[in-house]
Amino acid sequence: MTLEEKASLCSGETAWSTKAITRLGIPSIFMTDGPHGLRKAEGFDFTNSVPSTCFPTASALASSWNPALAQKMGEALGIESQANDVQILLGPGVNMKRSPLGGRNFEYFSEDPVLAGKMAIGFINGVQSQGVGTSMKHFAANSQEAERMSNSSNVDERTLNEIYFPAFEMAVKEAQPWTVMCSYNKLNGTYASENSYLLNQMLKEKWGLQGFVVSDWGAVNERALGVGAGLHLEMPASGGFNDKKIVEAVKKGTLAEARLDEIVTDLLAITLKAKDSHKKGIVVDKVKHNELARQVSGECIVLLKNDNAILPLQSALKKIAIVGDFAKNPRYQGAGSSQVRPTQIVNALNELQKMAKGTQFSFSTGYNTAGETDDAKIAEAVQHAKNSELVIVFAGLPDSYESEGFDRNNMDLPAGHNKLISEVAKVNKNIVVVLMNGAAVSMPWKNDVAAIVEAYLGGQAGGGAIADVLTGKVNPSGKLSETFPARLEDTPTAMDFPSRDGNANYGEGIFIGYRYYDKKKIEPNFPFGYGLSYTSFSYSDIKANTTSAKDSDAITISVKVKNTGKIAGKEVVQLYVHEQESEVARPENELKHFEKVTLLAGEEKTVTFQLTSRDFAYFNSKSHDWAIKSGNFDILIGSSSRDLPLKQTIAIESTKAAKIVLTRESLFKEFKNSPNSKAIYEQLVQSFTGANKKPETEDEKKAASFLEAMLADMPINKFLLLSGGKFTEENLDGILKAVNQN
Amino acid sequence: MTLEEKASLCSGETAWSTKAITRLGIPSIFMTDGPHGLRKAEGFDFTNSVPSTCFPTASALASSWNPALAQKMGEALGIESQANDVQILLGPGVNMKRSPLGGRNFEYFSEDPVLAGKMAIGFINGVQSQGVGTSMKHFAANSQEAERMSNSSNVDERTLNEIYFPAFEMAVKEAQPWTVMCSYNKLNGTYASENSYLLNQMLKEKWGLQGFVVSDWGAVNERALGVGAGLHLEMPASGGFNDKKIVEAVKKGTLAEARLDEIVTDLLAITLKAKDSHKKGIVVDKVKHNELARQVSGECIVLLKNDNAILPLQSALKKIAIVGDFAKNPRYQGAGSSQVRPTQIVNALNELQKMAKGTQFSFSTGYNTAGETDDAKIAEAVQHAKNSELVIVFAGLPDSYESEGFDRNNMDLPAGHNKLISEVAKVNKNIVVVLMNGAAVSMPWKNDVAAIVEAYLGGQAGGGAIADVLTGKVNPSGKLSETFPARLEDTPTAMDFPSRDGNANYGEGIFIGYRYYDKKKIEPNFPFGYGLSYTSFSYSDIKANTTSAKDSDAITISVKVKNTGKIAGKEVVQLYVHEQESEVARPENELKHFEKVTLLAGEEKTVTFQLTSRDFAYFNSKSHDWAIKSGNFDILIGSSSRDLPLKQTIAIESTKAAKIVLTRESLFKEFKNSPNSKAIYEQLVQSFTGANKKPETEDEKKAASFLEAMLADMPINKFLLLSGGKFTEENLDGILKAVNQN
Repeated sequence: MTLEEKASLCSGETAWSTKAITRLGIPSIFMTDGPHGLRKAEGFDFTNSVPSTCFPTASALASSWNPALAQKMGEALGIESQANDVQILLGPGVNMKRSPLGGRNFEYFSEDPVLAGKMAIGFINGVQSQGVGTSMKHFAANSQEAERMSNSSNVDERTLNEIYFPAFEMAVKEAQPWTVMCSYNKLNGTYASENSYLLNQMLKEKWGLQGFVVSDWGAVNERALGVGAGLHLEMPASGGFNDKKIVEAVKKGTLAEARLDEIVTDLLAITLKAKDSHKKGIVVDKVKHNELARQVSGECIVLLKNDNAILPLQSALKKIAIVGDFAKNPRYQGAGSSQVRPTQIVNALNELQKMAKGTQFSFSTGYNTAGETDDAKIAEAVQHAKNSELVIVFAGLPDSYESEGFDRNNMDLPAGHNKLISEVAKVNKNIVVVLMNGAAVSMPWKNDVAAIVEAYLGGQAGGGAIADVLTGKVNPSGKLSETFPARLEDTPTAMDFPSRDGNANYGEGIFIGYRYYDKKKIEPNFPFGYGLSYTSFSYSDIKANTTSAKDSDAITISVKVKNTGKIAGKEVVQLYVHEQESEVARPENELKHFEKVTLLAGEEKTVTFQLTSRDFAYFNSKSHDWAIKSGNFDILIGSSSRDLPLKQTIAIESTKAAKIVLTRESLFKEFKNSPNSKAIYEQLVQSFTGANKKPETEDEKKAASFLEAMLADMPINKFLLLSGGKFTEENLDGILKAVNQN
Repeated sequence: MTLEEKASLCSGETAWSTKAITRLGIPSIFMTDGPHGLRKAEGFDFTNSVPSTCFPTASALASSWNPALAQKMGEALGIESQANDVQILLGPGVNMKRSPLGGRNFEYFSEDPVLAGKMAIGFINGVQSQGVGTSMKHFAANSQEAERMSNSSNVDERTLNEIYFPAFEMAVKEAQPWTVMCSYNKLNGTYASENSYLLNQMLKEKWGLQGFVVSDWGAVNERALGVGAGLHLEMPASGGFNDKKIVEAVKKGTLAEARLDEIVTDLLAITLKAKDSHKKGIVVDKVKHNELARQVSGECIVLLKNDNAILPLQSALKKIAIVGDFAKNPRYQGAGSSQVRPTQIVNALNELQKMAKGTQFSFSTGYNTAGETDDAKIAEAVQHAKNSELVIVFAGLPDSYESEGFDRNNMDLPAGHNKLISEVAKVNKNIVVVLMNGAAVSMPWKNDVAAIVEAYLGGQAGGGAIADVLTGKVNPSGKLSETFPARLEDTPTAMDFPSRDGNANYGEGIFIGYRYYDKKKIEPNFPFGYGLSYTSFSYSDIKANTTSAKDSDAITISVKVKNTGKIAGKEVVQLYVHEQESEVARPENELKHFEKVTLLAGEEKTVTFQLTSRDFAYFNSKSHDWAIKSGNFDILIGSSSRDLPLKQTIAIESTKAAKIVLTRESLFKEFKNSPNSKAIYEQLVQSFTGANKKPETEDEKKAASFLEAMLADMPINKFLLLSGGKFTEENLDGILKAVNQN
């Protein structure tokens, strides 16, 4: 292969396909946006793609807390990809939701890395089981749309490793996506597309990605740097512009040809695998896939409120008012590159009319497509509400509120939607609000309505799924994959999001989502992991196989969960870990495991979790590695991040204490805490404080305690100066050699 | 002067004095800790310093909002320095209070840079008027005690310039402290003592410091680097250890001798000035200084609550119960290097007994020195409270709670103090709580008491000042120089303070203190700038000399303030600025000016403020300079940060728009916004979107709005790739040359 041929493989042929080299039998492969459906189109026409089943978007899907369901959906997407000769479906999006305002939140799973990672694994396994690749995106720390192509996400190493990396890490290790897509933004000043720390070090070396890295469309900056840093494929085509730069760099010697060979090898491996996996003659069963879309959507819906069991709708109801345009013209997906052309659209109004034949449904539109209302629309809705036993208001975010490319200005629904709900609530107390939106919204009317159904962006069959839940055909089992804060001001990034000065400083660090609200003791509207059911569950009998173990031991926790209600249902059993006394600031509780269980009325099951050492670890900034401090950890289990009735404390003996290399700048107290240097510490302290007599008076005690504090936090090299020459560089070198040797 | 002699001048001779070179007639000068008094001692004995008047500490002093008073106090301190042959008094401390937990907050003025800067100017002018130097400290971003000698304060450039620098900047420009003390910590990874950005660039070049920079005691790391970076003097003595390193560096050529010459020149200038300014035969009038200390303390006391005008104490009261050990053994200063040995100590109990002769005062101790109480102590206090018409509980923070060297664990008073107040409040509703503490504390009993008097650490005469305020001899006029948050969780650094992993990430950025609580709409216990009086004031007639001006114009705002009560009093008129529509996130309101006015009963005065362009500016991270956006600014005036009844809007035409050099990474919208490139922008957009037809359907509109958003935030160099070769590097260079030329 010539140098030019190799370089040519490092960028696309068209907007969506790679270059073939016929002479060598290298095929072209085709990639398609999505990923909750296929947006297969020519060039950059976003309005005329091939019809495909539009499944719920990621924020909905994650609310199912059901990786197996994501896998099933992935399988269907894989089949549709095969049918359309698509080799790689560009997803899933696993970025963390740093703010509810992120314009692309609807395309992302969660504010929690474990939930996002597990959902990603299900999705990837599903798609790839069909011989179609995925592209897990956008790596990394791409949390705002504003100025995303130039902005630098400035994130400390611990926060990256604990929050922004793990979903990627888990999925690379456990599901090996064929490709990973790097993000547009810079990370700590360096474009993701040329960030060796992200691409070479993390993805390839640490986590063992076997596939290749593709740029987000247009994310390349200096192409030759990207090859060095581990970016395999530039998309879309750049007309040979950047291929030439690679060739030049190799010729100039700034890029080793051997490095280019590695990149091309990775590229070819997936390219050939993709073509080998192609299945001919696949035909999509659109009806079946639409049914699956409805099933998935039904399991994603989160029942947020249900006073007096107003839901499911009683069959005895004679007159129900349906209010709000979304009942007829549902919002079911977000805007931007992920926008799919559905095979059909189901609306909730039609479905309800079909399913509840004994009930008479009136309809009033309530607001226009921009979300505005007016006196006439309000009057009509109020009139209908007055004449009905129950009102279902459909509300949410119009398309113009949520899109790739820009962030939301606030958490509010359109004023027209809020007004509609409030006015209707004045005349009828039996109000059910059904929400269609891709991310958390504020709810000024929260206390004025009887029920709230969060339907998210449920895909083309979402209207049917809503009807299923409202009528009780489906017992809701979704749980929030993100906190619904009470006010925008309560959010961790409220002071400055999106940042527009070139730098997004992730100042809240590891404290995003529930980690923030818990630590700050802020009451959200609805917490992470929360969601109601038409039945009820009880938790009991938490058991550990040990209450005192090494972190490397097999630690097993089991609980019993019982369906204490009268109908079958599903419950998401959530396991959080709390460290009683940490050496650095840690979140109150962190989700580590979860399992969705199906229980018939009265049925009880035992759910068992296997803990791993990582479940106790934090990322230590000094040792640049995961570390565990010996001590007590509470294992908390329950039905949401704020409803954790069961607790089991385990004393963990660490086998992974932070390995801190003591240096000339290490603090006296670090010598005290290191087993190798305790004795040396005592000597040092004595030589420093030896002259002082025991404190007796209050003033002397005060001075002594001040000196003790001073000393504890003093770097050892300061002692060179303060000892007046008694403590020499040679002494220091000797000590450091001794303590670091063992 | 030999190289060795020059190097020798760069470090101290002893713990507190510099080296003399007799052969050249260079004298030694003596420095002394403080600065709310002189802690003149031998070596590091913190228990046996020369007696000196102990004035209120900085957090108290700033609550006076009276720079003239600080100046008066500074004059007295200058006289005491002269009397003790001290050439430099090591203060004032002007660091910003990032968290209420900062162990050294009692030594610092405020959470607001303007208030801290103005108080510093008063203090410095006062001391230096007596021919004694000051050392403004600790430069910079030294906001926690924990691991302060190794920790890196990681702060973005805007935050440094808007929050952590201005107090230093103002005082350097307006008061020229003889010295500035660099802090222990690193700033963004580089020790302050070898940080050229801080010392050379900011202090010397930008702000024009004429004096020298001294290390905090033990803050030196690599001495030769420090000389290069602008650290003149290392303290304390390092036994010649580091002088040799300087000599070696010059000999090796890593440090230019000319640079050392500059450093020595600066050092000698102040050294000679100090000796020239020495006055012989000064004798301190200790009685007069004690009276001044009482006067200062009286003006620092903040009346936080006074239900039903329970204060001042009515002379008709027959029986008052004094509860709490602090009434007899006041806490009046903090622990650590600032701890002064007072000339005498006045306690409130004695003073009250002297001043209110018609009243019978009982006393019960309530708690021990550690802050613990017990049943017997509570029972005694409750018994006294039952038998009295009114109870004054003295509470606060014991010495062990607030010290240099470590930070507080929480905002709470000792449990014993809180319990005492709560128990006493159960039997008598007429409770006055007097607090002695150096920083904000929580108040679980806030709603159960009638009055709260925040006396801070009032110095040796603080007990007398408390009696003055309680009896009404002094009408309280202090205002909080820091927010009193309701809960620790509400504070901006609640998630991680102090940081202990080597990095303190100042993630809240510019949003500290009231800037945070206002932006997050968090209700504090008492807001910044708040404080009651025994009289009342009304604000009226806000007037601007113009409602539309260039920022460079003279803009004058005046208001009328009237004493509407029956006794004379002092009011702090506060002026805040609010930008209506900012281009980056800005605080709601920012204090820019204030003035304390004395008003007889019924008297009205007009207060006039002269605004400067800096009052409207923010620090632009892209242009690395102060910038003003043209637009409307509200000038808000009132009696606290949350009581601003007067508003005047001024339309400002900017003469200081951010000068952004457009680069190949500048965004399309930046070309749109730049006057030089609007036309070019239109061409570019057309060439990019020209192919698209006008959107008609909803889907087309959605796609168009997405593309528009994409484009606005796209760096122009991406167009090189996306244009398919039509837009060349030459085109880009041409455009950039054209737009940056004008």
